[in-house]
Amino acid sequence: MSKPHAHAVVIAIGDELVRGQCVDTNSAYLADRLGEAGIRTVEHCTIGDELPAIVDAFRRAAGTADLVVATGGLGPTEDDLTRDALAQAMGVDLTLCSTCLADLEAFFHERGRPISQANRRQAMLPVGTERLANAVGTAPGIAATLGSAAVFCLPGVPHEMRTMYDQQVAARLGAGGNVILHHAVHTFGAPESEIGATLADLMTPDAHPRLGTTAKIGVISVRFSVSGATIEGAQAQIRQTSDVIRQRLGEIVFGEGEETLASAVGNLLQQRGQTLATAESCTGGLLGETITAVSGASAYYLGGVVAYANPVKQQFLDVPGDVLASCGAVSEPVAAAMAQGCRRRFNSDWALSVTGIAGPTGGTADKPLGLVYLAVAGPDGTDVRRHHITGPRAFVRQRATWIILNDLRVALTKA
Amino acid sequence: MSKPHAHAVVIAIGDELVRGQCVDTNSAYLADRLGEAGIRTVEHCTIGDELPAIVDAFRRAAGTADLVVATGGLGPTEDDLTRDALAQAMGVDLTLCSTCLADLEAFFHERGRPISQANRRQAMLPVGTERLANAVGTAPGIAATLGSAAVFCLPGVPHEMRTMYDQQVAARLGAGGNVILHHAVHTFGAPESEIGATLADLMTPDAHPRLGTTAKIGVISVRFSVSGATIEGAQAQIRQTSDVIRQRLGEIVFGEGEETLASAVGNLLQQRGQTLATAESCTGGLLGETITAVSGASAYYLGGVVAYANPVKQQFLDVPGDVLASCGAVSEPVAAAMAQGCRRRFNSDWALSVTGIAGPTGGTADKPLGLVYLAVAGPDGTDVRRHHITGPRAFVRQRATWIILNDLRVALTKA
Repeated sequence: MSKPHAHAVVIAIGDELVRGQCVDTNSAYLADRLGEAGIRTVEHCTIGDELPAIVDAFRRAAGTADLVVATGGLGPTEDDLTRDALAQAMGVDLTLCSTCLADLEAFFHERGRPISQANRRQAMLPVGTERLANAVGTAPGIAATLGSAAVFCLPGVPHEMRTMYDQQVAARLGAGGNVILHHAVHTFGAPESEIGATLADLMTPDAHPRLGTTAKIGVISVRFSVSGATIEGAQAQIRQTSDVIRQRLGEIVFGEGEETLASAVGNLLQQRGQTLATAESCTGGLLGETITAVSGASAYYLGGVVAYANPVKQQFLDVPGDVLASCGAVSEPVAAAMAQGCRRRFNSDWALSVTGIAGPTGGTADKPLGLVYLAVAGPDGTDVRRHHITGPRAFVRQRATWIILNDLRVALTKA
Repeated sequence: MSKPHAHAVVIAIGDELVRGQCVDTNSAYLADRLGEAGIRTVEHCTIGDELPAIVDAFRRAAGTADLVVATGGLGPTEDDLTRDALAQAMGVDLTLCSTCLADLEAFFHERGRPISQANRRQAMLPVGTERLANAVGTAPGIAATLGSAAVFCLPGVPHEMRTMYDQQVAARLGAGGNVILHHAVHTFGAPESEIGATLADLMTPDAHPRLGTTAKIGVISVRFSVSGATIEGAQAQIRQTSDVIRQRLGEIVFGEGEETLASAVGNLLQQRGQTLATAESCTGGLLGETITAVSGASAYYLGGVVAYANPVKQQFLDVPGDVLASCGAVSEPVAAAMAQGCRRRFNSDWALSVTGIAGPTGGTADKPLGLVYLAVAGPDGTDVRRHHITGPRAFVRQRATWIILNDLRVALTKA
């Protein structure tokens, strides 16, 4: 398994996935990581817990690509059929892997639980394959060869899958051909078609690298891939292309790669040595959660109040009761008072507030579903904006969170 | 297109998806909705923005299934190739759809913006196909026939895709064969292998319905599908099977279908006419966000404090400064004081607190990464528990949120 792999097919196995009861996040993770190793993923395929479908998927993938990575179906229960399907595709039997059994016994011993008969099934591997140790769960993975393709079977639990990929699979992929790196430049504040028009000449099929755009709740990302003989060479191409994109798009660009609106805001606050607090009504904590998803947020984020009930807006944020009564909780004066009260109570440099009607109930002709007031209170005063966001509850809440973070970003870059 | 469809293949198109830069949520949504219409999805396939790959995927899907639903590649930019690929697979040309152009002109007119040349591309359809109106965005969808399969092409933006499916596609699927309904019974508090052992006889390939389990950050769901001539008949089977599962698994079952730990807690609070408030440190708002993701949460959830910095724990939750200094923020006494202070300040029946080290930095030998203290303060006192959660930052935060909600659920059922 030391020859370089060029193309991969990623297979996700599970009734819950093909039926749509769960969203598959494993395939995206794997494709991203494989790209880092210089391997281009050409297809993802999702199939259910049916032996013939899994056998067929293995065979077809091994015919298409020289690397196949499958996730799921390695658990202890009767519907976990990946072991059986791989054996059948290879034309071999299952055999007890004594190392796997020892691993499983140790896993349960450490936790003071007896090993169950169901877990013993997990120690069966197709003849001629190798076990991949699972450092954080019970399901061992499998490394195998099917036709001319290398096959890796990993657990479906994302946390276990990622650990096994990092610890066991990445090193076995050998030196690929060119390094392939993916990159994205993220924007907020302009429609996709406008960005597409500005970058049209870089988005044609013969452009190198060819740019593509994706839209997610208002965040428009410009994506591209580069390949090079070395990581350094590929990184230089990324830098060059990103600079062109930044030059053309200007201040709507808020970050690249793993950067988010929250991390962009965090960087700006840290550069300025300033602090932030939040006052949320309809987002219910999502704004604070988004800010603190960034590791190290404690350097600038002090905390916040989720002022869901009106008395909480008065008690914790000093919103005047008469303003609440006369204007209603979803109004410009209340948004302003929430942000100002928050800034004062937390003694922060900046404070953000969100009040709105996330739906699906609670709208009126006057104040429709999706009406949101967002305020930024800072050293130079308070700025309140009214937005009408059309979409389901989760969409309204997420979009409101992005808008207010972007408002703060713009305010910080101008401050 | 009025004959019933039995099997579907769902195709997701986009470089960002096949490369793993974005997670595809559309395919799961569609598979779930198609199941409601009695159509079984047998495969999801994800491919990039490459004309030959998309043409091939259309042809292969139309050979496998009698219904093909594709998402993505209908945008205004150069990398949007679904229109071209479908035309090529059908062996026809693209032609200007004047209704599409009128829709686009109206869309931009309403927003006071001129229509761009890029957006005009969106008005081109393969000859002999039908446009699906887009009520919330610019990309029209396409209804076509390829070989003996019906094909629907929908936008990749989830919000637009869902609206178009609901408004345009669902009604065109005709009366399917049997109704297929998917269901899940959700548990928290026991390992998957234990649940698998308890239900083993119902998980074999010949069981009807055959149960399967999935694990997600501690929530173990028991899933199954039923089919029946009528919705009522299928629902009766769901009821019957769910009752068997509930009987065998007991109090670890917290809900079914769309129910979450947050909605289960919400129902229990509403039944009792009681209220809830939250005090969060390391989860940064995730607990409040999770509780308020349930529409109608304002009936029992008053609000919360995100006490990220230590002074906020003192100022807003009355955590004594000497306890913070002597025990540290991540400790049993601080968790207890946060929950008690929160309950008193909000004057709620129940209060929850979370304090911990989500990582990836900040751990010590004494207080390792993933150490979390969770407290439930209620009418009968305060209960604090220590947990050590192994995993990345987002995993620790999510798992802590589920555990504390489940602790409250158990407390409420016993209260």
